[in-house]
Amino acid sequence: MTSDPVRLGVVGLGRAFMLMIPTFDADPRVKLVAAAAPRQESRTAFEQEYGGKGYESIEALCADPDVEAVYIATPHQMHVDHVLAAAKAGKHILVEKPLAISMEDADRMVRAAREAGVHLIVGPSHSFDLPVDLAARLIESGEFGALRMIQALNYTDFLYRPRRPEELRTEEGGGVMFSQAIHQIDVVRRLAGGMAEKVVAFTGNWDPKRPTEGAFTALMSFAGGCVANLTYSGYAHFDSDIWMNDVGELGQAKDPASYGKARRALMDLDPEEEARLKSTRTFGSGAAPIEAAHNEHFGPVIALCDRADLRLTPDGIEVFGDTERRFIEAPFGPAPRKTVVEALVRAVREDVPPVQTGEWGLASLEVCHAILRSAETGQPVALQHQCNAHQ
Amino acid sequence: MTSDPVRLGVVGLGRAFMLMIPTFDADPRVKLVAAAAPRQESRTAFEQEYGGKGYESIEALCADPDVEAVYIATPHQMHVDHVLAAAKAGKHILVEKPLAISMEDADRMVRAAREAGVHLIVGPSHSFDLPVDLAARLIESGEFGALRMIQALNYTDFLYRPRRPEELRTEEGGGVMFSQAIHQIDVVRRLAGGMAEKVVAFTGNWDPKRPTEGAFTALMSFAGGCVANLTYSGYAHFDSDIWMNDVGELGQAKDPASYGKARRALMDLDPEEEARLKSTRTFGSGAAPIEAAHNEHFGPVIALCDRADLRLTPDGIEVFGDTERRFIEAPFGPAPRKTVVEALVRAVREDVPPVQTGEWGLASLEVCHAILRSAETGQPVALQHQCNAHQ
Ligand SMILES: NC(=O)c1ccc[n+]([C@@H]2O[C@H](COP(=O)([O-])OP(=O)(O)OC[C@H]3O[C@@H](n4cnc5c(N)ncnc54)[C@H](O)[C@@H]3O)[C@@H](O)[C@H]2O)c1
Ligand SMILES: NC(=O)c1ccc[n+]([C@@H]2O[C@H](COP(=O)([O-])OP(=O)(O)OC[C@H]3O[C@@H](n4cnc5c(N)ncnc54)[C@H](O)[C@@H]3O)[C@@H](O)[C@H]2O)c1
Repeated sequence: MTSDPVRLGVVGLGRAFMLMIPTFDADPRVKLVAAAAPRQESRTAFEQEYGGKGYESIEALCADPDVEAVYIATPHQMHVDHVLAAAKAGKHILVEKPLAISMEDADRMVRAAREAGVHLIVGPSHSFDLPVDLAARLIESGEFGALRMIQALNYTDFLYRPRRPEELRTEEGGGVMFSQAIHQIDVVRRLAGGMAEKVVAFTGNWDPKRPTEGAFTALMSFAGGCVANLTYSGYAHFDSDIWMNDVGELGQAKDPASYGKARRALMDLDPEEEARLKSTRTFGSGAAPIEAAHNEHFGPVIALCDRADLRLTPDGIEVFGDTERRFIEAPFGPAPRKTVVEALVRAVREDVPPVQTGEWGLASLEVCHAILRSAETGQPVALQHQCNAHQ
Repeated sequence: MTSDPVRLGVVGLGRAFMLMIPTFDADPRVKLVAAAAPRQESRTAFEQEYGGKGYESIEALCADPDVEAVYIATPHQMHVDHVLAAAKAGKHILVEKPLAISMEDADRMVRAAREAGVHLIVGPSHSFDLPVDLAARLIESGEFGALRMIQALNYTDFLYRPRRPEELRTEEGGGVMFSQAIHQIDVVRRLAGGMAEKVVAFTGNWDPKRPTEGAFTALMSFAGGCVANLTYSGYAHFDSDIWMNDVGELGQAKDPASYGKARRALMDLDPEEEARLKSTRTFGSGAAPIEAAHNEHFGPVIALCDRADLRLTPDGIEVFGDTERRFIEAPFGPAPRKTVVEALVRAVREDVPPVQTGEWGLASLEVCHAILRSAETGQPVALQHQCNAHQ
């Protein structure tokens, strides 16, 4: 073990990377030494900001011996090629959720990492959020008896954030299933121990102008008998952050006056203008970072145990016990998403994988597909590729 | 049509009647002229309070020509005999939810009322709550486009309120299914128009000392494509009234300091002492009435339409539209549950039935049984006895 920062190469300097900047900037355990990006401006901005090297391709980046691990933050459909390239080069990998779009790709990625002997971590995902981690540990401790049920819900404006056209096509990984359901599934699996057995679900595809799943509701049963109820709507109406102390997904204080902002920003834009709007939010565009003052979250979550219900909040866990309510803090800071860096550092430096391995990401992805299939058939779908959360 | 108050006979002077007292006392459209109760004290208290006549049996009460309609507020398992007796005597009927425990009984009751030419109304139930009624009308108006999804949840202390032993035995109508799920089903059916098609569900039976369903979670699909997500826990931990402006089910302001009260009150009581505690809450026992200052409710409900999500609150509907949030008030008062009296008066005086007829109550009861069956089999259950909410 050494206290040297992990030397990280970033692949894709878009929105996801922007969201990681406050973490990377604040956490001395990681150092950005290289980036791969197709656009020259992004590479130049990266070199100026971090003093690292800019590359045009992941292959070039992976040939850099200074890079110990890569953070792959390219669009979903590229994850497979990029993970395979990084594994081939023997780099440890942090890849954005979802691991892949198809189960076949996911399987290839998991095998490639295993064969190359590198760590494959899927994240950040909201299962890394400190309150989720804390709640999972409290549940595992047995202090509150058996976990019986989980209720998770989230109402956001996801479908009306600026998109490239493929992000609105389900077959290409568009809609809420692969980008958002995956978070909720990850959170719920983390709390319930991972081994989901069956899913039954309905999906909603309600806006003909954005014809992909924008909502879903599902029941999911787990080995051991726990059942989870998951609901998500990305149609930008009810905002469930009002039940999270007016704290947004990224831990930022939310301004109620900004209601309707996402939809208004898209009004009268054609797809090209919309894609351009999205690109104004990438690295080097001068977009301001989010100011987080609380932990991130993915909407209200209640975990029902025999002797208490645990309510996850951005600041910790509210324990509704048999006769008393109390609060267990999950202190924010110094950096947001520090648990993701911790997972990476422990994997690279100590060879200890986190819960959110490639196998884990594949199992969560299986649930996304099962939700789509159940919604199509009207029948429960049995799961075959689950793995558990205990290492 | 006449403006004479409807002359009502009450059958059963227990907890349910207690909850109706503020309504009956405040609403000049109804007059309590008789009561049937097995206990002398209750009859005497009734005579003193209302100047009406006390009877030992429903048959005696129904022989009183002054009685136009009866309100049956006896335990579930007695509803069938009491409804049949009232129908036989040609009295209009308001019967407490659930209509019955078994589908066979429910069917007999519906037929008996039809053959006798009397109105059979199942209520009060929370589908009568003013905000539910208002939301249903807003949805029906089409102003917000198609209704797509409903999320309803409620976390209460139901299982730890004092009970008689049969109230904890499912076969006898005990547990949350027949007393509580029925409300949530009624609310959701009211909003979605009534015609449920399929249900898939899990139930929770988690306290060996009170071995009956104390929780459930269900998905329910409707003709027209709307799907509802229902979750209920009566295990007295998380209290979802914190998401209803700290207003309780009965419209009363809730004191956070009373957390855990229900469970504490039962600690170390044997079943007999517990039943005795329950009886201290009946009429004539001097128990204070609840002070409502808001409409009643049955937990958070969100109805997702194409152009808005409607959030039901105790004071009205919060409309989360495409670009604006606004609030449509449902003013409380003068009496709580006035919509129940209205339904009764319209039926008796104008021969216009409400949504919540016997057929309606039977359809909601079918869903309770379907939830139990789905939880047993792990499969979706198709519904056969649904009726719609439009008269
Ligand atoms: N965990 C989170 O909070 C979070 C948030 C947003 C996005 N994401 C995930 O991150 C991924 C990217 O999404 P996004 O919203 O940032 O998209 P984006 O389009 O904003 O960013 C992707 C970037 O990849 C770059 N790119 C394309 N091809 C490349 C290549 N061959 N080599 C290197 N870079 C290339 C693009 O130029 C772009 O800047 C998705 O999988 C998404 O699910 C995660
Ligand atoms: N809508 C609501 O808000 C609400 C609330 C509570 C109960 N309820 C319903 O009301 C019904 C009664 O429940 P409860 O909690 O009031 O029970 P309870 O035991 O408090 O009251 C029932 C009463 O019926 C009386 N009774 C028994 N046999 C009788 C007979 N043969 N003739 C006349 N009276 C008789 C009992 O003495 C008792 O006072 C149940 O069906 C329940 O679901 C509805």
